[in-house]
Amino acid sequence: MRNIKMQVSYDGTAYCGYQIQPDQVTIQGKLEEAVSILTGEEVHITSSGRTDAGVHARAQVINFLTRSAIPIERWCLAINSRLPDDITVHTAEEMPLNFHARHDAKQKTYRYSIHRSRWPDVFHRKTRLHHPSLLDIDAMRRSLRYLEGEHDFTSFCSTRTSVESHVRTIFSTSVEYRPEPMLGDGEAGVIHIYITGNGFLFNMVRIIVGTVLEVGTGKRSESEIKQILDARDRKLAGPTAMAHGLTLWEVRYE
Amino acid sequence: MRNIKMQVSYDGTAYCGYQIQPDQVTIQGKLEEAVSILTGEEVHITSSGRTDAGVHARAQVINFLTRSAIPIERWCLAINSRLPDDITVHTAEEMPLNFHARHDAKQKTYRYSIHRSRWPDVFHRKTRLHHPSLLDIDAMRRSLRYLEGEHDFTSFCSTRTSVESHVRTIFSTSVEYRPEPMLGDGEAGVIHIYITGNGFLFNMVRIIVGTVLEVGTGKRSESEIKQILDARDRKLAGPTAMAHGLTLWEVRYE
Repeated sequence: MRNIKMQVSYDGTAYCGYQIQPDQVTIQGKLEEAVSILTGEEVHITSSGRTDAGVHARAQVINFLTRSAIPIERWCLAINSRLPDDITVHTAEEMPLNFHARHDAKQKTYRYSIHRSRWPDVFHRKTRLHHPSLLDIDAMRRSLRYLEGEHDFTSFCSTRTSVESHVRTIFSTSVEYRPEPMLGDGEAGVIHIYITGNGFLFNMVRIIVGTVLEVGTGKRSESEIKQILDARDRKLAGPTAMAHGLTLWEVRYE
Repeated sequence: MRNIKMQVSYDGTAYCGYQIQPDQVTIQGKLEEAVSILTGEEVHITSSGRTDAGVHARAQVINFLTRSAIPIERWCLAINSRLPDDITVHTAEEMPLNFHARHDAKQKTYRYSIHRSRWPDVFHRKTRLHHPSLLDIDAMRRSLRYLEGEHDFTSFCSTRTSVESHVRTIFSTSVEYRPEPMLGDGEAGVIHIYITGNGFLFNMVRIIVGTVLEVGTGKRSESEIKQILDARDRKLAGPTAMAHGLTLWEVRYE
Protein backbone atom coordinates (compact mmCIF):
# COMPACT_ATOMS: atom_id res chain seq x y z
CA MET A 1 0.00 0.00 0.00
CA ARG A 2 1.18 3.54 -0.79
CA ASN A 3 -0.06 6.87 0.60
CA ILE A 4 -0.03 9.62 -2.05
CA LYS A 5 -0.26 13.31 -1.10
CA MET A 6 -1.18 15.89 -3.75
CA GLN A 7 -1.62 19.64 -4.03
CA VAL A 8 -4.62 20.54 -6.15
CA SER A 9 -5.94 23.85 -7.51
CA TYR A 10 -9.50 24.39 -8.67
CA ASP A 11 -11.86 27.02 -9.93
CA GLY A 12 -14.86 26.23 -7.75
CA THR A 13 -17.38 28.13 -9.90
CA ALA A 14 -18.99 25.09 -11.48
CA TYR A 15 -19.08 22.88 -8.36
CA CYS A 16 -21.40 22.25 -5.45
CA GLY A 17 -18.38 22.49 -3.17
CA TYR A 18 -15.46 20.18 -2.48
CA GLN A 19 -17.21 17.39 -0.62
CA ILE A 20 -18.84 14.51 -2.45
CA GLN A 21 -22.65 14.48 -2.39
CA PRO A 22 -25.11 12.24 -4.20
CA ASP A 23 -26.27 13.60 -7.58
CA GLN A 24 -24.07 16.70 -7.31
CA VAL A 25 -20.96 17.73 -9.21
CA THR A 26 -18.18 18.09 -6.65
CA ILE A 27 -14.39 18.45 -6.68
CA GLN A 28 -13.93 15.33 -4.58
CA GLY A 29 -16.17 13.43 -6.97
CA LYS A 30 -14.10 14.47 -9.99
CA LEU A 31 -10.82 13.64 -8.22
CA GLU A 32 -11.98 10.22 -7.06
CA GLU A 33 -13.25 9.45 -10.54
CA ALA A 34 -9.93 10.43 -12.15
CA VAL A 35 -7.79 8.48 -9.67
CA SER A 36 -10.08 5.46 -9.81
CA ILE A 37 -9.98 5.34 -13.61
CA LEU A 38 -6.20 5.66 -13.53
CA THR A 39 -5.57 3.00 -10.89
CA GLY A 40 -8.49 0.68 -11.53
CA GLU A 41 -9.23 0.75 -7.79
CA GLU A 42 -12.09 2.31 -5.87
CA VAL A 43 -10.20 5.15 -4.23
CA HIS A 44 -11.37 7.30 -1.32
CA ILE A 45 -9.75 10.72 -1.19
CA THR A 46 -9.17 12.63 2.04
CA SER A 47 -8.71 16.44 1.91
CA SER A 48 -7.43 19.06 4.35
CA GLY A 49 -11.08 20.11 4.68
CA ARG A 50 -14.09 20.87 2.53
CA THR A 51 -14.61 24.14 0.69
CA ASP A 52 -18.10 25.56 0.03
CA ALA A 53 -19.86 25.81 -3.31
CA GLY A 54 -18.17 28.46 -5.47
CA VAL A 55 -15.02 28.63 -3.28
CA HIS A 56 -11.69 28.08 -5.05
CA ALA A 57 -8.38 26.51 -4.07
CA ARG A 58 -4.86 27.42 -5.06
CA ALA A 59 -3.44 24.56 -2.97
CA GLN A 60 -5.91 22.14 -1.51
CA VAL A 61 -4.09 19.13 -0.07
CA ILE A 62 -5.44 15.61 -0.51
CA ASN A 63 -4.20 12.10 0.17
CA PHE A 64 -5.30 8.59 -0.70
CA LEU A 65 -4.16 5.00 -0.34
CA THR A 66 -3.42 2.95 -3.43
CA ARG A 67 -1.79 -0.28 -4.54
CA SER A 68 -0.85 1.25 -7.88
CA ALA A 69 2.81 0.95 -8.88
CA ILE A 70 2.81 4.11 -11.05
CA PRO A 71 6.10 5.98 -10.37
CA ILE A 72 5.51 9.12 -8.28
CA GLU A 73 6.76 11.51 -10.99
CA ARG A 74 4.06 10.33 -13.42
CA TRP A 75 1.00 10.90 -11.24
CA CYS A 76 0.35 14.59 -11.94
CA LEU A 77 0.30 14.33 -15.72
CA ALA A 78 -1.66 11.07 -15.63
CA ILE A 79 -4.37 12.47 -13.38
CA ASN A 80 -4.54 15.88 -15.06
CA SER A 81 -5.27 14.22 -18.37
CA ARG A 82 -8.34 12.68 -16.71
CA LEU A 83 -9.58 15.83 -14.94
CA PRO A 84 -11.75 18.67 -16.28
CA ASP A 85 -9.85 21.90 -17.06
CA ASP A 86 -11.00 23.66 -13.87
CA ILE A 87 -9.13 21.19 -11.62
CA THR A 88 -5.34 20.69 -11.78
CA VAL A 89 -2.95 18.57 -9.72
CA HIS A 90 0.39 20.35 -9.20
CA THR A 91 2.45 18.07 -6.99
CA ALA A 92 2.47 14.42 -5.96
CA GLU A 93 4.50 13.00 -3.10
CA GLU A 94 4.68 9.63 -1.39
CA MET A 95 4.05 9.85 2.35
CA PRO A 96 4.23 7.48 5.35
CA LEU A 97 1.06 5.38 5.55
CA ASN A 98 -0.21 7.28 8.60
CA PHE A 99 -0.21 10.72 6.92
CA HIS A 100 -3.74 12.20 6.91
CA ALA A 101 -4.47 15.43 4.97
CA ARG A 102 -7.01 16.68 7.52
CA HIS A 103 -5.75 15.42 10.89
CA ASP A 104 -2.15 16.40 10.24
CA ALA A 105 -2.86 19.93 8.89
CA LYS A 106 -1.27 22.41 11.28
CA GLN A 107 -2.21 25.66 9.65
CA LYS A 108 -4.37 26.92 6.84
CA THR A 109 -4.39 30.18 4.93
CA TYR A 110 -7.41 31.54 3.11
CA ARG A 111 -7.35 34.52 0.77
CA TYR A 112 -10.38 36.68 0.09
CA SER A 113 -10.13 38.97 -2.96
CA ILE A 114 -12.04 42.17 -3.64
CA HIS A 115 -12.14 44.19 -6.86
CA ARG A 116 -12.58 47.77 -5.65
CA SER A 117 -13.79 49.85 -8.56
CA ARG A 118 -16.73 51.73 -9.93
CA TRP A 119 -17.11 49.07 -12.65
CA PRO A 120 -17.01 45.29 -12.46
CA ASP A 121 -13.98 43.46 -13.88
CA VAL A 122 -15.24 40.91 -16.39
CA PHE A 123 -11.96 38.99 -16.30
CA HIS A 124 -11.90 38.36 -12.54
CA ARG A 125 -15.62 38.31 -11.84
CA LYS A 126 -15.52 34.69 -10.65
CA THR A 127 -12.61 35.09 -8.22
CA ARG A 128 -13.03 38.61 -6.80
CA LEU A 129 -15.96 40.27 -5.05
CA HIS A 130 -16.87 43.50 -6.79
CA HIS A 131 -17.10 46.39 -4.34
CA PRO A 132 -18.00 49.71 -5.98
CA SER A 133 -17.50 52.17 -3.12
CA LEU A 134 -14.25 53.27 -1.46
CA LEU A 135 -12.80 51.24 1.40
CA ASP A 136 -10.57 52.29 4.29
CA ILE A 137 -7.90 49.60 3.92
CA ASP A 138 -5.97 50.62 7.04
CA ALA A 139 -9.09 50.39 9.21
CA MET A 140 -9.82 46.94 7.76
CA ARG A 141 -6.25 45.87 8.50
CA ARG A 142 -6.40 47.13 12.11
CA SER A 143 -9.81 45.58 12.78
CA LEU A 144 -8.54 42.14 11.71
CA ARG A 145 -5.81 42.36 14.38
CA TYR A 146 -8.48 42.00 17.10
CA LEU A 147 -9.14 38.49 15.80
CA GLU A 148 -5.56 37.26 16.04
CA GLY A 149 -4.87 34.76 18.82
CA GLU A 150 -7.01 32.03 20.39
CA HIS A 151 -10.69 32.98 20.68
CA ASP A 152 -14.18 31.57 20.71
CA PHE A 153 -15.35 32.50 17.21
CA THR A 154 -19.07 31.79 17.72
CA SER A 155 -19.92 35.28 16.40
CA PHE A 156 -18.13 34.47 13.15
CA CYS A 157 -19.57 31.02 12.62
CA SER A 158 -22.68 29.98 10.74
CA THR A 159 -25.43 28.88 13.11
CA ARG A 160 -25.84 25.88 10.77
CA THR A 161 -22.84 24.14 12.34
CA SER A 162 -22.65 21.14 14.58
CA VAL A 163 -19.06 21.25 15.85
CA GLU A 164 -18.66 21.23 19.62
CA SER A 165 -15.95 23.81 20.14
CA HIS A 166 -15.89 27.22 18.49
CA VAL A 167 -12.42 27.95 19.79
CA ARG A 168 -9.82 28.45 17.07
CA THR A 169 -6.49 30.25 16.78
CA ILE A 170 -5.80 32.86 14.12
CA PHE A 171 -2.02 33.11 13.74
CA SER A 172 -1.92 36.09 11.41
CA THR A 173 -3.97 38.38 9.18
CA SER A 174 -2.89 40.75 6.45
CA VAL A 175 -4.47 43.01 3.88
CA GLU A 176 -2.67 43.68 0.61
CA TYR A 177 -3.75 46.48 -1.67
CA ARG A 178 -2.58 46.89 -5.24
CA PRO A 179 -3.78 49.67 -7.55
CA GLU A 180 -5.15 48.25 -10.80
CA PRO A 181 -6.37 51.30 -12.70
CA MET A 182 -9.04 50.37 -15.20
CA LEU A 183 -10.87 52.05 -18.05
CA GLY A 184 -13.16 54.68 -16.62
CA ASP A 185 -11.78 54.33 -13.09
CA GLY A 186 -8.19 55.32 -12.39
CA GLU A 187 -8.75 54.64 -8.66
CA ALA A 188 -9.57 50.95 -9.11
CA GLY A 189 -7.61 48.34 -7.20
CA VAL A 190 -7.55 44.83 -5.82
CA ILE A 191 -7.58 43.94 -2.12
CA HIS A 192 -6.40 40.56 -0.91
CA ILE A 193 -7.23 39.61 2.68
CA TYR A 194 -5.13 36.72 4.04
CA ILE A 195 -6.13 34.87 7.21
CA THR A 196 -4.01 32.09 8.64
CA GLY A 197 -5.25 29.86 11.46
CA ASN A 198 -5.16 26.38 12.93
CA GLY A 199 -8.63 25.72 11.53
CA PHE A 200 -11.78 27.53 10.53
CA LEU A 201 -15.44 27.14 11.45
CA PHE A 202 -18.26 26.92 8.87
CA ASN A 203 -18.34 30.21 6.89
CA MET A 204 -15.87 31.78 9.35
CA VAL A 205 -13.64 33.54 6.81
CA ARG A 206 -16.62 34.81 4.82
CA ILE A 207 -18.36 36.20 7.92
CA ILE A 208 -15.11 37.86 9.06
CA VAL A 209 -14.74 39.44 5.59
CA GLY A 210 -18.39 40.54 5.53
CA THR A 211 -17.85 42.26 8.88
CA VAL A 212 -14.50 43.80 7.99
CA LEU A 213 -16.06 45.21 4.80
CA GLU A 214 -18.49 47.12 7.01
CA VAL A 215 -15.46 48.56 8.82
CA GLY A 216 -13.99 49.48 5.43
CA THR A 217 -17.08 51.40 4.36
CA GLY A 218 -17.28 53.20 7.73
CA LYS A 219 -20.54 51.52 8.75
CA ARG A 220 -18.77 50.12 11.82
CA SER A 221 -15.77 51.29 13.82
CA GLU A 222 -12.72 49.05 13.76
CA SER A 223 -12.91 48.23 17.47
CA GLU A 224 -16.48 46.93 17.14
CA ILE A 225 -14.88 43.72 15.90
CA LYS A 226 -13.62 43.12 19.43
CA GLN A 227 -17.10 43.61 20.91
CA ILE A 228 -18.64 41.27 18.33
CA LEU A 229 -16.03 38.63 19.09
CA ASP A 230 -16.61 38.88 22.85
CA ALA A 231 -20.42 38.67 22.50
CA ARG A 232 -20.29 35.20 20.90
CA ASP A 233 -23.43 35.97 18.94
CA ARG A 234 -23.60 35.46 15.17
CA LYS A 235 -26.34 38.10 14.88
CA LEU A 236 -23.92 40.89 15.80
CA ALA A 237 -21.45 40.21 12.98
CA GLY A 238 -21.87 41.32 9.37
CA PRO A 239 -23.26 39.31 6.47
CA THR A 240 -21.50 36.26 5.00
CA ALA A 241 -19.39 37.60 2.10
CA MET A 242 -20.09 35.89 -1.22
CA ALA A 243 -18.31 32.59 -1.85
CA HIS A 244 -16.60 33.46 -5.13
CA GLY A 245 -14.02 35.84 -3.59
CA LEU A 246 -12.62 33.07 -1.37
CA THR A 247 -9.64 30.83 -2.15
CA LEU A 248 -8.02 28.15 0.02
CA TRP A 249 -4.50 29.48 -0.37
CA GLU A 250 -2.20 27.14 1.54
CA VAL A 251 -2.21 24.24 3.98
CA ARG A 252 0.83 23.60 6.13
CA TYR A 253 1.97 20.39 7.79
CA GLU A 254 4.82 19.71 10.20
CA MET B 1 -29.92 63.14 -32.55
CA ARG B 2 -26.89 62.31 -30.37
CA ASN B 3 -23.87 60.15 -31.13
CA ILE B 4 -22.70 58.17 -28.08
CA LYS B 5 -19.23 56.58 -27.95
CA MET B 6 -18.49 53.89 -25.35
CA GLN B 7 -15.58 51.74 -24.25
CA VAL B 8 -16.66 48.19 -23.49
CA SER B 9 -14.87 45.20 -21.97
CA TYR B 10 -16.01 41.62 -22.41
CA ASP B 11 -15.05 38.07 -21.62
CA GLY B 12 -15.69 36.50 -25.04
CA THR B 13 -15.78 32.89 -23.77
CA ALA B 14 -19.54 32.46 -23.99
CA TYR B 15 -20.05 34.27 -27.31
CA CYS B 16 -20.01 33.45 -31.00
CA GLY B 17 -17.89 36.55 -31.52
CA TYR B 18 -18.66 40.24 -31.49
CA GLN B 19 -20.73 40.55 -34.63
CA ILE B 20 -24.46 39.96 -34.59
CA GLN B 21 -25.62 36.77 -36.34
CA PRO B 22 -29.06 35.20 -36.51
CA ASP B 23 -29.75 32.64 -33.75
CA GLN B 24 -26.34 33.17 -32.15
CA VAL B 25 -25.36 34.78 -28.87
CA THR B 26 -23.07 37.72 -29.71
CA ILE B 27 -21.62 40.73 -27.93
CA GLN B 28 -23.21 43.14 -30.41
CA GLY B 29 -26.56 41.42 -29.91
CA LYS B 30 -26.36 41.83 -26.13
CA LEU B 31 -25.28 45.47 -26.41
CA GLU B 32 -28.02 46.39 -28.90
CA GLU B 33 -30.59 44.66 -26.71
CA ALA B 34 -29.46 46.55 -23.60
CA VAL B 35 -29.37 49.95 -25.32
CA SER B 36 -32.67 49.36 -27.07
CA ILE B 37 -34.42 48.41 -23.82
CA LEU B 38 -32.97 51.48 -22.13
CA THR B 39 -33.87 53.99 -24.85
CA GLY B 40 -37.01 52.39 -26.26
CA GLU B 41 -35.52 52.78 -29.75
CA GLU B 42 -34.23 50.19 -32.19
CA VAL B 43 -30.53 50.97 -31.96
CA HIS B 44 -27.79 49.85 -34.34
CA ILE B 45 -24.33 49.70 -32.77
CA THR B 46 -21.12 50.26 -34.72
CA SER B 47 -17.83 48.89 -33.34
CA SER B 48 -14.16 49.48 -34.11
CA GLY B 49 -14.24 46.01 -35.71
CA ARG B 50 -15.45 42.51 -34.97
CA THR B 51 -13.67 40.07 -32.69
CA ASP B 52 -13.81 36.29 -33.26
CA ALA B 53 -15.60 33.74 -31.10
CA GLY B 54 -13.80 33.37 -27.78
CA VAL B 55 -11.73 36.55 -28.21
CA HIS B 56 -11.96 39.12 -25.40
CA ALA B 57 -11.85 42.89 -25.23
CA ARG B 58 -10.44 45.18 -22.59
CA ALA B 59 -11.49 48.28 -24.54
CA GLN B 60 -13.67 47.68 -27.56
CA VAL B 61 -15.03 51.00 -28.85
CA ILE B 62 -18.61 51.33 -30.05
CA ASN B 63 -20.90 54.16 -31.11
CA PHE B 64 -24.59 54.57 -31.84
CA LEU B 65 -27.10 57.27 -32.65
CA THR B 66 -29.97 57.92 -30.27
CA ARG B 67 -32.69 60.46 -29.53
CA SER B 68 -32.58 59.58 -25.83
CA ALA B 69 -32.16 62.55 -23.48
CA ILE B 70 -30.45 60.51 -20.74
CA PRO B 71 -27.57 62.62 -19.32
CA ILE B 72 -24.17 61.29 -20.47
CA GLU B 73 -22.95 60.48 -16.95
CA ARG B 74 -25.85 58.07 -16.41
CA TRP B 75 -25.33 55.84 -19.45
CA CYS B 76 -22.73 53.41 -18.08
CA LEU B 77 -24.62 52.42 -14.97
CA ALA B 78 -27.94 52.26 -16.83
CA ILE B 79 -26.58 49.98 -19.54
CA ASN B 80 -24.49 47.82 -17.22
CA SER B 81 -27.58 47.01 -15.18
CA ARG B 82 -29.09 45.60 -18.41
CA LEU B 83 -26.01 43.62 -19.54
CA PRO B 84 -24.87 40.12 -18.55
CA ASP B 85 -21.92 40.03 -16.14
CA ASP B 86 -19.36 39.19 -18.85
CA ILE B 87 -19.88 42.52 -20.66
CA THR B 88 -19.24 45.90 -18.99
CA VAL B 89 -19.41 49.47 -20.29
CA HIS B 90 -16.65 51.62 -18.76
CA THR B 91 -16.97 55.05 -20.39
CA ALA B 92 -19.61 57.00 -22.31
CA GLU B 93 -18.91 60.17 -24.24
CA GLU B 94 -20.96 62.35 -26.56
CA MET B 95 -19.32 62.76 -29.98
CA PRO B 96 -19.94 64.84 -33.10
CA LEU B 97 -22.60 63.19 -35.28
CA ASN B 98 -20.04 62.13 -37.89
CA PHE B 99 -17.89 60.07 -35.48
CA HIS B 100 -17.70 56.43 -36.62
CA ALA B 101 -16.05 53.80 -34.38
CA ARG B 102 -14.64 51.82 -37.32
CA HIS B 103 -13.84 54.42 -39.98
CA ASP B 104 -12.20 56.83 -37.55
CA ALA B 105 -10.03 54.24 -35.72
CA LYS B 106 -6.37 55.13 -36.34
CA GLN B 107 -4.64 52.43 -34.39
CA LYS B 108 -5.48 49.23 -32.62
CA THR B 109 -3.58 47.18 -30.08
CA TYR B 110 -4.14 43.49 -29.47
CA ARG B 111 -2.65 41.52 -26.61
CA TYR B 112 -2.04 37.79 -26.74
CA SER B 113 -1.37 36.09 -23.39
CA ILE B 114 0.45 32.85 -22.74
CA HIS B 115 0.71 30.91 -19.48
CA ARG B 116 4.14 29.26 -19.68
CA SER B 117 4.23 26.47 -17.15
CA ARG B 118 4.32 22.76 -16.75
CA TRP B 119 0.77 22.87 -15.35
CA PRO B 120 -2.32 24.73 -16.55
CA ASP B 121 -3.54 27.70 -14.51
CA VAL B 122 -7.19 27.05 -13.66
CA PHE B 123 -7.77 30.73 -12.84
CA HIS B 124 -6.62 32.15 -16.20
CA ARG B 125 -7.50 29.23 -18.43
CA LYS B 126 -10.01 31.30 -20.43
CA THR B 127 -7.72 34.25 -21.12
CA ARG B 128 -4.24 32.70 -21.49
CA LEU B 129 -2.96 29.99 -23.80
CA HIS B 130 -1.29 27.23 -21.81
CA HIS B 131 2.17 26.44 -23.18
CA PRO B 132 3.98 23.71 -21.23
CA SER B 133 7.47 23.85 -22.75
CA LEU B 134 10.12 26.55 -22.40
CA LEU B 135 10.11 29.54 -24.78
CA ASP B 136 12.95 31.77 -25.95
CA ILE B 137 11.32 35.14 -25.25
CA ASP B 138 14.15 37.18 -26.76
CA ALA B 139 13.96 35.28 -30.05
CA MET B 140 10.19 35.82 -30.13
CA ARG B 141 10.69 39.53 -29.47
CA ARG B 142 13.28 39.85 -32.26
CA SER B 143 11.25 37.87 -34.79
CA LEU B 144 8.27 40.18 -34.30
CA ARG B 145 10.44 43.17 -35.29
CA TYR B 146 10.51 41.85 -38.89
CA LEU B 147 6.78 42.50 -39.09
CA GLU B 148 6.94 46.15 -38.06
CA GLY B 149 6.24 48.65 -40.83
CA GLU B 150 3.99 48.54 -43.89
CA HIS B 151 3.79 45.08 -45.47
CA ASP B 152 1.56 42.78 -47.44
CA PHE B 153 0.44 40.38 -44.71
CA THR B 154 -1.05 37.69 -46.98
CA SER B 155 1.06 35.02 -45.24
CA PHE B 156 -0.51 35.97 -41.91
CA CYS B 157 -4.10 36.17 -43.08
CA SER B 158 -6.75 33.47 -43.11
CA THR B 159 -7.49 32.33 -46.65
CA ARG B 160 -11.17 32.67 -45.68
CA THR B 161 -11.05 36.43 -46.21
CA SER B 162 -12.54 38.61 -48.91
CA VAL B 163 -10.79 41.93 -48.37
CA GLU B 164 -9.01 43.35 -51.42
CA SER B 165 -5.80 44.63 -49.92
CA HIS B 166 -3.61 42.65 -47.54
CA VAL B 167 -1.38 45.65 -46.89
CA ARG B 168 -1.35 46.84 -43.31
CA THR B 169 1.04 48.75 -41.09
CA ILE B 170 2.30 47.40 -37.78
CA PHE B 171 3.50 50.36 -35.72
CA SER B 172 5.00 48.43 -32.83
CA THR B 173 5.33 45.03 -31.19
CA SER B 174 6.46 44.08 -27.72
CA VAL B 175 6.77 40.99 -25.58
CA GLU B 176 6.43 41.26 -21.81
CA TYR B 177 7.48 38.44 -19.54
CA ARG B 178 6.60 38.23 -15.88
CA PRO B 179 7.56 35.30 -13.67
CA GLU B 180 4.52 33.85 -11.90
CA PRO B 181 5.89 30.90 -9.95
CA MET B 182 3.18 28.38 -9.25
CA LEU B 183 2.78 25.25 -7.16
CA GLY B 184 4.95 22.53 -8.62
CA ASP B 185 6.64 24.85 -11.11
CA GLY B 186 8.88 27.64 -9.85
CA GLU B 187 9.77 28.52 -13.47
CA ALA B 188 6.21 29.39 -14.50
CA GLY B 189 5.44 32.79 -16.00
CA VAL B 190 3.10 34.81 -18.15
CA ILE B 191 3.97 36.23 -21.57
CA HIS B 192 2.01 39.11 -23.04
CA ILE B 193 2.54 39.87 -26.74
CA TYR B 194 1.33 43.35 -27.79
CA ILE B 195 0.87 44.22 -31.46
CA THR B 196 -0.23 47.70 -32.54
CA GLY B 197 -1.23 48.47 -36.11
CA ASN B 198 -3.52 50.54 -38.31
CA GLY B 199 -5.73 47.51 -38.86
CA PHE B 200 -5.61 43.73 -38.87
CA LEU B 201 -6.64 41.07 -41.37
CA PHE B 202 -8.80 38.07 -40.47
CA ASN B 203 -6.92 35.94 -37.88
CA MET B 204 -3.78 38.02 -38.46
CA VAL B 205 -2.72 38.39 -34.82
CA ARG B 206 -3.44 34.73 -34.06
CA ILE B 207 -1.42 33.51 -37.07
CA ILE B 208 1.46 35.82 -36.13
CA VAL B 209 1.39 34.42 -32.57
CA GLY B 210 1.18 30.83 -33.83
CA THR B 211 4.29 31.46 -35.94
CA VAL B 212 6.21 33.35 -33.27
CA LEU B 213 5.53 30.48 -30.83
CA GLU B 214 7.37 28.19 -33.25
CA VAL B 215 10.29 30.61 -33.04
CA GLY B 216 10.02 30.50 -29.25
CA THR B 217 10.25 26.71 -29.16
CA GLY B 218 13.16 26.67 -31.61
CA LYS B 219 11.22 24.97 -34.38
CA ARG B 220 11.95 27.99 -36.62
CA SER B 221 14.73 30.55 -36.65
CA GLU B 222 13.74 34.13 -35.91
CA SER B 223 14.61 35.38 -39.41
CA GLU B 224 12.28 32.88 -41.04
CA ILE B 225 9.49 35.33 -40.19
CA LYS B 226 10.93 37.67 -42.81
CA GLN B 227 10.93 34.93 -45.48
CA ILE B 228 7.36 33.95 -44.60
CA LEU B 229 6.24 37.57 -44.86
CA ASP B 230 7.93 38.03 -48.25
CA ALA B 231 6.45 34.82 -49.68
CA ARG B 232 2.85 36.04 -49.27
CA ASP B 233 1.68 32.47 -48.74
CA ARG B 234 -0.46 31.49 -45.75
CA LYS B 235 0.80 27.89 -45.94
CA LEU B 236 4.30 28.94 -44.87
CA ALA B 237 3.25 30.53 -41.58
CA GLY B 238 2.48 28.66 -38.38
CA PRO B 239 -0.93 27.56 -37.09
CA THR B 240 -3.61 29.99 -35.95
CA ALA B 241 -3.13 30.33 -32.18
CA MET B 242 -6.24 29.58 -30.14
CA ALA B 243 -8.77 32.39 -29.76
CA HIS B 244 -8.96 32.50 -25.97
CA GLY B 245 -5.48 34.06 -25.48
CA LEU B 246 -6.41 37.13 -27.54
CA THR B 247 -7.74 40.43 -26.19
CA LEU B 248 -8.55 43.63 -28.09
CA TRP B 249 -6.54 45.90 -25.83
CA GLU B 250 -6.96 49.44 -27.10
CA VAL B 251 -8.35 51.44 -30.02
CA ARG B 252 -7.02 54.92 -30.70
CA TYR B 253 -8.64 57.79 -32.53
CA GLU B 254 -7.30 61.23 -33.52
